[in-house]
Amino acid sequence: MTPTKGYAAQDPKSDLAPWSFERREPGPHDVQIEIIYCGVCHSDIHQVRDEWGGTIFPIVPGHEIVGRVSRVGDHVKKYKNGDLVGVGCLVDSCRECRNCKEGLEQYCEVGFVGTYNSRERKTGAVTYGGYSNMIVTHEDFVLKVSEDLPLEGVAPLLCAGITTYSPLRHWKVGKGHKVGVLGLGGLGHMAVKFAVAFGAEVTMLSHSPSKEADAKRLGAHRFALTSNADTLNELANYFDFIIDTVSAPHNYNTYLSMLHTNGTMICVGAPPAPAEIPAFNLIGQRRSIGGSLIGGIKETQEMLDYCAANNITSDVEVIAIKDINTAYERMMKGDVRYRFVIDMATL
Amino acid sequence: MTPTKGYAAQDPKSDLAPWSFERREPGPHDVQIEIIYCGVCHSDIHQVRDEWGGTIFPIVPGHEIVGRVSRVGDHVKKYKNGDLVGVGCLVDSCRECRNCKEGLEQYCEVGFVGTYNSRERKTGAVTYGGYSNMIVTHEDFVLKVSEDLPLEGVAPLLCAGITTYSPLRHWKVGKGHKVGVLGLGGLGHMAVKFAVAFGAEVTMLSHSPSKEADAKRLGAHRFALTSNADTLNELANYFDFIIDTVSAPHNYNTYLSMLHTNGTMICVGAPPAPAEIPAFNLIGQRRSIGGSLIGGIKETQEMLDYCAANNITSDVEVIAIKDINTAYERMMKGDVRYRFVIDMATL
Repeated sequence: MTPTKGYAAQDPKSDLAPWSFERREPGPHDVQIEIIYCGVCHSDIHQVRDEWGGTIFPIVPGHEIVGRVSRVGDHVKKYKNGDLVGVGCLVDSCRECRNCKEGLEQYCEVGFVGTYNSRERKTGAVTYGGYSNMIVTHEDFVLKVSEDLPLEGVAPLLCAGITTYSPLRHWKVGKGHKVGVLGLGGLGHMAVKFAVAFGAEVTMLSHSPSKEADAKRLGAHRFALTSNADTLNELANYFDFIIDTVSAPHNYNTYLSMLHTNGTMICVGAPPAPAEIPAFNLIGQRRSIGGSLIGGIKETQEMLDYCAANNITSDVEVIAIKDINTAYERMMKGDVRYRFVIDMATL
Repeated sequence: MTPTKGYAAQDPKSDLAPWSFERREPGPHDVQIEIIYCGVCHSDIHQVRDEWGGTIFPIVPGHEIVGRVSRVGDHVKKYKNGDLVGVGCLVDSCRECRNCKEGLEQYCEVGFVGTYNSRERKTGAVTYGGYSNMIVTHEDFVLKVSEDLPLEGVAPLLCAGITTYSPLRHWKVGKGHKVGVLGLGGLGHMAVKFAVAFGAEVTMLSHSPSKEADAKRLGAHRFALTSNADTLNELANYFDFIIDTVSAPHNYNTYLSMLHTNGTMICVGAPPAPAEIPAFNLIGQRRSIGGSLIGGIKETQEMLDYCAANNITSDVEVIAIKDINTAYERMMKGDVRYRFVIDMATL
């Protein structure tokens, strides 16, 4: 076992604090990675505070990991020491079900193994995430990362990036489509960048007037203030797609009404209470509402390669790991543009 | 104007009773039709009782109309006296919007003109439906009907038929798909027939054990009792599509959980209260829920032709028009297999 340093929460009420633990020795197909940056995702907070239930304490969060390979198992073929790599939300899956065979490990019928707060399939050992100096991951769940992009902006692509890229690709969003992006946060700002890159006409839907300038800077063609009733009326039946990144309670019906015939609302944010959706609002214009979860390994690599080729990264604020609890407080107030990323050299 | 006989409700509390009114003389593009049969749809009851609000009284319901052409306007090209024809839910639309130009008159952006309880676009005259001896309709909204099928079984195709045919075609349901049909009524029995005809494996989902034999007779490959928890568990992640024909309140989440990854639940029944849908249940398996409304004129003709070629009709119980109020009471109890059709010779 290899001694590892990280930050952990010991229970739902405690702040994150330094914690020492052990990682397994790299097996024949494992890659050991020295972590350089790790992004901070809203789901880290939910799990640290046990808001979804079932958190295994102590918990070391973090699933937007980039770093360099420091050691490889005997049979590793894809990576060598010194390679720049990433680890996202998944570190294993059953590999045998229909979904795994199709590269949809995120929908593994047995259940994927999360990068943290999960249990390894064979040993049952708890997985610990990227708020740490090092991680050991099976090569099949390690991604290649380009040397050409600013690395701190690459880290959030592993979750915020793929979570928006995957549904836009699945629903074939592109030229000729009018796309609304609801919510300008970690997910929303990536949705704008990707939808614009794919050729769509993009409207930022936000309740915060202060975000108009940023939305335009990110590439949005239009900005619509969701607190303005006139704006909402003007946008009735307008969009082909709305990508809904909001996890706070909100009125789905308002946004469904903005979809044209055959339009689809894609949920990637999940509020705690069920959405209330009048069937008439779907039936009347053959509208749909769907959801999408992160992405599979193959598609995550495709996304990283696309970002390298098109110079796309996240807008980030780099922090020292000692400031992580303050960062959580700021995230709860929406005070981050648009992703905190921990510089792991500060550990 | 031509004197016309029908059955009307004079207000929301009154039974349907004989009523005399006038139809317009056929204009240059109008077709006058002697009505032979008219199907009885649940939406007739809703509107007669003003349950959706805004009903224009007196109301003559009926939008599942078949009959023979008795007179045509000077410029009518598509029909001649004696032709067997049908009229469904629509008798006009703006004909100029994006949807009308694509043959999606049911989603006309200006709003289609309903066969009854609606107003003609130019004159504002109230439209009266098929519980009558004769109707005058623009030739573009008249359908050709085969001489080869039992005509009473054709009438319900104009609404119950197209309402289920259209979404099954839109979502390309067919060979290799596992399809659940929720609710065995007027819509549900047609959904079973079409889904089976298109090559899908069809499971009837019903809370009524007494419907198992009928479901199998209609062609369903499986029957699942929705009141049995074990059955529901066995069907978790099973279907590619569920077509939901139920208008009574029900738990959408139960059925969404039966969809496999990428599965779609298609709503054609609209309960009065909004559906409560946890976003997690969509996101976790990239599921979707969509709605669909009747069908356009071109697709309705396609459906009628398909039914003629494949010997598909509705299962009906023919009634005299004097029994219409009793029929409504029986429909409210689900006591019809599976559509009442009025023999207009009894008027």
